[in-house]
Amino acid sequence: MHSFDELLLAFSEHFKQSHFPAGTPTLYGPANYFLEMGGKRIRPVCVLMGNELFDTILPDSWMVATAIELFHNFTLIHDDIMDKAPLRRGMETVHTRYGEPTALLSGDVMLVAAYDYLNKVKAPSFHRIIRIFNQTARQVCEGQQLDMDFEKLDRVSLEDYLQMITLKTSVLLAASLQLGAVLGGAGEGNQQHIYTFGKHLGISFQIQDDYLDAFGDPVRFGKQVGGDILSNKKTFLLIRALETADAGQQQQLRELLKSDPPDKVEQVLEIYRACGVHEWALDLKTQYLQSALQNLDDIAVVSKRKAPLEALARFLVQRDY
Amino acid sequence: MHSFDELLLAFSEHFKQSHFPAGTPTLYGPANYFLEMGGKRIRPVCVLMGNELFDTILPDSWMVATAIELFHNFTLIHDDIMDKAPLRRGMETVHTRYGEPTALLSGDVMLVAAYDYLNKVKAPSFHRIIRIFNQTARQVCEGQQLDMDFEKLDRVSLEDYLQMITLKTSVLLAASLQLGAVLGGAGEGNQQHIYTFGKHLGISFQIQDDYLDAFGDPVRFGKQVGGDILSNKKTFLLIRALETADAGQQQQLRELLKSDPPDKVEQVLEIYRACGVHEWALDLKTQYLQSALQNLDDIAVVSKRKAPLEALARFLVQRDY
Repeated sequence: MHSFDELLLAFSEHFKQSHFPAGTPTLYGPANYFLEMGGKRIRPVCVLMGNELFDTILPDSWMVATAIELFHNFTLIHDDIMDKAPLRRGMETVHTRYGEPTALLSGDVMLVAAYDYLNKVKAPSFHRIIRIFNQTARQVCEGQQLDMDFEKLDRVSLEDYLQMITLKTSVLLAASLQLGAVLGGAGEGNQQHIYTFGKHLGISFQIQDDYLDAFGDPVRFGKQVGGDILSNKKTFLLIRALETADAGQQQQLRELLKSDPPDKVEQVLEIYRACGVHEWALDLKTQYLQSALQNLDDIAVVSKRKAPLEALARFLVQRDY
Repeated sequence: MHSFDELLLAFSEHFKQSHFPAGTPTLYGPANYFLEMGGKRIRPVCVLMGNELFDTILPDSWMVATAIELFHNFTLIHDDIMDKAPLRRGMETVHTRYGEPTALLSGDVMLVAAYDYLNKVKAPSFHRIIRIFNQTARQVCEGQQLDMDFEKLDRVSLEDYLQMITLKTSVLLAASLQLGAVLGGAGEGNQQHIYTFGKHLGISFQIQDDYLDAFGDPVRFGKQVGGDILSNKKTFLLIRALETADAGQQQQLRELLKSDPPDKVEQVLEIYRACGVHEWALDLKTQYLQSALQNLDDIAVVSKRKAPLEALARFLVQRDY
């Protein structure tokens, strides 16, 4: 058994190879530029962990892990175009540096490269692997579309936001774990448990993300606190506040959403605190973490094999950065 | 054996089914809008013809044909974004109608849907099918990138243009035929012959396309003649003219490329005629057609099985619309 950190180190080494053919540097250069920016590599490591929960890690799992990380990076390049984001991880996004057409194409070839790695899988579960991968890819696209649709709406229900976040971010974490489990020989029931573990963990992670953006320690968090508030982003916190604030606070919040006073962040945070959004978010995050841990508990393998995943879950959700 | 027209009719019926899940109409609606615009469906029918050249058409071939057509449409949606094209086939492009972010995403889900169909292939050549498909997908992206790179260059050699056109348009026709041949049980040599047949045919087709845009009958051609000239597009004709014109004509041509006089099309055509670009293009087109027919001849099956492909080749290249 390996810890997340051990597998992360091994995967990071493995992922350093070139994923594209030689030639056409104007296309593959930008794609490599983005991959070299790095990333947390949580999802590919979850493939390896999902496998190792049930059995020794197969060579196939490294292929699927690589495919998952390439897919994730493809979505980031395209999301950055759609969101017109100038920076990611403090560096220029691909479209900022190389123009939108090249960014679009380098995302496309990255998705094709992901399928190249999937195509190297030798296990008899090959078709099932592709089916899960495709289903997830579609859901991630649906989540991104819903996110853009919601931007145009005045009001989004908590239920709809939860559905969008599940599609946009949780299902990829869930599917990564499940794909590893399939390769590890898990049965249908155990596959469902680990998938749901990943889904609940992903939601808990997103609540923590929204929470830290508003209430995090700017030094520990490493980026400007209140970014979501300044960009009027619909988050768990804003949606909850709009659902529970009294008439006066609602009015104040709606006016703040339409304007940019210098103390916007402070004013919004004050409403959040007055509505108890702060404690609500921590509670909800804990509920999802507990659900995830229950799903992990339901998996029919000896508990010592589950230790690395439990440690990862607690770490991801309790981080303060 | 079936003719192109018979298979076209059958494929068009087959392709009418929905290729996306229910739900998220803001994403799949735009994707369906584009598919419903129609198209010539040459590539998917070539999969079926490539199969039938060697054996009875397998159910797998319909899956691969559908994947090829979805892939082709994915590239068109993304190309239209990159080229900022307002119209295609006389209708609004996806990004014009639904915005660039949604067009980008609906292209992405279309590529994923293509892999869904590939994943339904049951033949033992499954991995090889995906490998050929991925290789081709990458080449098409490379071709599009080169095309954009060339737009920024003052001068492009005929050799480089030919390489770009081969990647951007010919390899997909070639691979469609080869994929069908693989499913039909063709050996390695015959696969290479049919691939090269498709590649040469694709180049011949593109020369015809460039030719018709300049010298076609506007009524028969169905679109404005001289569109490429007005947009300063590098075509076989322009590149050849820049390579063979005398100093005075070169100077005149370069000035015309930088300006937009009302009689620009007529002036450029006059230079083309004076340089003999007109006959040169017809000759080159015929050379590539002859090479293609030679490749077809080299395939080790009885000649009556080749008749539909020969008819298709002559039709595609001799069309005047």
